[in-house]
Amino acid sequence: MPLIHISLRAGKPEAYRRAIFDGLYRAMRETLHVPEDDQFMTITEHEDANFRTGTAYAVARSADVVYIRITVFDTRTAEQKKALFKRTAELLGNSPGIRPEDVFITVLDAAKENWSVGNGLAQFA
Amino acid sequence: MPLIHISLRAGKPEAYRRAIFDGLYRAMRETLHVPEDDQFMTITEHEDANFRTGTAYAVARSADVVYIRITVFDTRTAEQKKALFKRTAELLGNSPGIRPEDVFITVLDAAKENWSVGNGLAQFA
Amino acid sequence: MPLIHISLRAGKPEAYRRAIFDGLYRAMRETLHVPEDDQFMTITEHEDANFRTGTAYAVARSADVVYIRITVFDTRTAEQKKALFKRTAELLGNSPGIRPEDVFITVLDAAKENWSVGNGLAQFA
Repeated sequence: MPLIHISLRAGKPEAYRRAIFDGLYRAMRETLHVPEDDQFMTITEHEDANFRTGTAYAVARSADVVYIRITVFDTRTAEQKKALFKRTAELLGNSPGIRPEDVFITVLDAAKENWSVGNGLAQFA
Repeated sequence: MPLIHISLRAGKPEAYRRAIFDGLYRAMRETLHVPEDDQFMTITEHEDANFRTGTAYAVARSADVVYIRITVFDTRTAEQKKALFKRTAELLGNSPGIRPEDVFITVLDAAKENWSVGNGLAQFA
Repeated sequence: MPLIHISLRAGKPEAYRRAIFDGLYRAMRETLHVPEDDQFMTITEHEDANFRTGTAYAVARSADVVYIRITVFDTRTAEQKKALFKRTAELLGNSPGIRPEDVFITVLDAAKENWSVGNGLAQFA
């Protein structure tokens, strides 16, 4: 049940954006061991005036940077997050071919009681 | 002061999207007892390539699934969240007629000091 | 590495939206002392049916309200957040000229281990 949102500059083809979803899903399967078809993800595309990036922390980001916000259970460990970051950068590097410098990820933690994945229930509380 | 963001696939009429706002506002009034006109909500609509959903957790979601992210005070109880989930699914089921399987909600907690609802002040700190 | 998202109604010129980025960056430099070029920000613009605001908490918000979501390290103090709110409202008041009533900010805290600012690494863990 991670819920993911990706922001990137407008102009990439559909296949490129679908590959981001595919890579994130596979990274979550491998490192967070989420169940099959646990894919809850959205993308927004931004024109130049609505997107800004910088070079802070000595990372040479380009116009192709993607911001990935992932909300997960607050039971995920630092090791799991580290593995998720590494594998996501690898997989998005393979396809659609995003440079590792351009993969920017922020994780938000939400308690098990904070999730309703359908039917008005708190399935994990 | 909950701040809400809803993501859904593009193509629904205005009245449909306004009904989502109305239902969420009413659910918050009834279950979180927010003050009158405490409505701070945005929607983004996504083309198919920018929206992905799955069937994990044995919920038969459709293309009409809505992802609802609600940021609230970190003082909200598990009971309040449970009531909010239940009432939201009921009300969105009534209008605009979203199947309960398609109501996906994630709550994010933010401390009282984390809110400025205008004028550059931290009103609740 | 704060990651910022701003939501506002569609229709403002590019210069207006760029000024919001500039003001937020300067406010973060002055109050959070973020490093140079630490600018990671996105904007979504919303048509009327996809944007709702209210007058709760006795703040006379207008159609020009902006919702600003800022994700920061969970080590930021209440004093820093208070200073950030104040300075942001001042600077956005100067340019692009947003009324202080229309500056709505929510801060989300994320642990140091929750950030990867490039290269698949958890730089701050």
